[in-house]
Amino acid sequence: MDEWRKRVRVGVIGGNRPEKRHLDMARKVGECVARAGAILVCGGLAGVMEAAASAAKKAGGLTIGIIPGSVPGEANPYIDIPIATGMGYARNCLVAMNSDVLIAIDGEYGTLTEISYGNIYGKRVIGLDTWEIKGVVMASSPEEAVALALQKGAPGD
Amino acid sequence: MDEWRKRVRVGVIGGNRPEKRHLDMARKVGECVARAGAILVCGGLAGVMEAAASAAKKAGGLTIGIIPGSVPGEANPYIDIPIATGMGYARNCLVAMNSDVLIAIDGEYGTLTEISYGNIYGKRVIGLDTWEIKGVVMASSPEEAVALALQKGAPGD
Amino acid sequence: MDEWRKRVRVGVIGGNRPEKRHLDMARKVGECVARAGAILVCGGLAGVMEAAASAAKKAGGLTIGIIPGSVPGEANPYIDIPIATGMGYARNCLVAMNSDVLIAIDGEYGTLTEISYGNIYGKRVIGLDTWEIKGVVMASSPEEAVALALQKGAPGD
Amino acid sequence: MDEWRKRVRVGVIGGNRPEKRHLDMARKVGECVARAGAILVCGGLAGVMEAAASAAKKAGGLTIGIIPGSVPGEANPYIDIPIATGMGYARNCLVAMNSDVLIAIDGEYGTLTEISYGNIYGKRVIGLDTWEIKGVVMASSPEEAVALALQKGAPGD
Repeated sequence: MDEWRKRVRVGVIGGNRPEKRHLDMARKVGECVARAGAILVCGGLAGVMEAAASAAKKAGGLTIGIIPGSVPGEANPYIDIPIATGMGYARNCLVAMNSDVLIAIDGEYGTLTEISYGNIYGKRVIGLDTWEIKGVVMASSPEEAVALALQKGAPGD
Repeated sequence: MDEWRKRVRVGVIGGNRPEKRHLDMARKVGECVARAGAILVCGGLAGVMEAAASAAKKAGGLTIGIIPGSVPGEANPYIDIPIATGMGYARNCLVAMNSDVLIAIDGEYGTLTEISYGNIYGKRVIGLDTWEIKGVVMASSPEEAVALALQKGAPGD
Repeated sequence: MDEWRKRVRVGVIGGNRPEKRHLDMARKVGECVARAGAILVCGGLAGVMEAAASAAKKAGGLTIGIIPGSVPGEANPYIDIPIATGMGYARNCLVAMNSDVLIAIDGEYGTLTEISYGNIYGKRVIGLDTWEIKGVVMASSPEEAVALALQKGAPGD
Repeated sequence: MDEWRKRVRVGVIGGNRPEKRHLDMARKVGECVARAGAILVCGGLAGVMEAAASAAKKAGGLTIGIIPGSVPGEANPYIDIPIATGMGYARNCLVAMNSDVLIAIDGEYGTLTEISYGNIYGKRVIGLDTWEIKGVVMASSPEEAVALALQKGAPGD
């Protein structure tokens, strides 16, 4: 089993038109994910996805972007491994499927599909200023969100 | 343009392990949808989907079931037009895409993905004892739910 | 089990920029499929798909069009039941999945994916002036193609 | 733009029950792909896919496996970056979409869908003892196949 396979994959989900404070949260989450040695998975486009990926790259991490279009090059420049799906919004299902745990930041209905798929697939979902529904564990800071995401022995671990 | 194409398509979404009262609601919704001359779209499996389809058939309606598996015959027996997708839960996206309006009854995270996709695609979502979130117009009875779904000039119409 | 469910579903596949003689073949195939009481399944767009669907409609048949886009209304006007997938060319897999048997007319690589998926799913594939490969039974006329498609006891039946 | 993004991605496609000589070819192709600094993309399961990935790993390469199931861990142990799709055979479309060029070794109808999708997406397809159809450039050895795949200025480059 290769070294890459042993790493936890943290999905960071959220809107593509977030406010500045959500972008700051996303950057901090991306940085913490990378520093912890985890792989960052996201939808590969703009907003929260790009902020998290850019910070993860800066901190030396690996980033996977699962995009709705059919051309891998459409992923934002901070994605190491772009995966094109050509499936449009149905790719949200694949973002959840390919994450061990999810951190949701802000976000609208696309993020809500990912939160839901996360719950369907039995993944823990941590929230930062996002949909406050059953199945989302709210965190009070990006650092806490990543800590909760990587916590051993938590429900769903 | 054929006659079938002019009919409104109402998606009925909900859990596959509902309580009896949710099954009763689903049956009434299916019946009203068929009586109004609309086509019933659903996920083609058990629970709310089967109850609604069975009542729609009994009332002379047409039913479409978009299923997660790859064998059309897996749809419940009340589905006239089974559509196999082989996509698992990502098929929830197609249920929303192929409905003009959605009625959610009870339901867990699968239903929540469909409510979310409905909102992404700009479809009205009517709710009966389901997720009470922004983007769901709650109805107080199956009859009212179908009336709201088929109302002309409503937002999203 | 409803009457619609008992009908054979014949997938008609082929190019969207065919020559006139292929359009003639497609029309004849569509007509024969409808006259035999079978449902016509296709990709819902132009060329062979539209010619077959238009003739099937004229002969009183029912037509299903599984389209690559996410808006059901994009199907050609001869489709009774448009199914949007939003999956682009991956929808070719669903065309094969939802047909009991396939008739390929002319066609390029899209048609070849459908011929291949037909074989993967154990469906018989009949060919008219199309890819002559293992797994395609060539017919010499549209009438023969439909007869072969609906033949009982044939391999794959 | 990250270093990973600059690397060519070579899709290696082929059967999951190949003969020994095809496995030998796949291993040699995987080794050459890795030595050339390219990323190996495949379907992530057994046979040609596993042989190519295992040799690519041994030679220090990076491997991506796009699998039909919904659990990333189902990929063979030589896959660094497993991508679960839950789409069954429709994932073949994504294998082509995410490769800059394809090398087909042996293979049945699944491989033929990938060859076809490769042509649809304008990717060069190199063949080793596989479907000899228009749109496949046959190579006489694994070394030649990889050389043709990585050749600059070739049609489709």
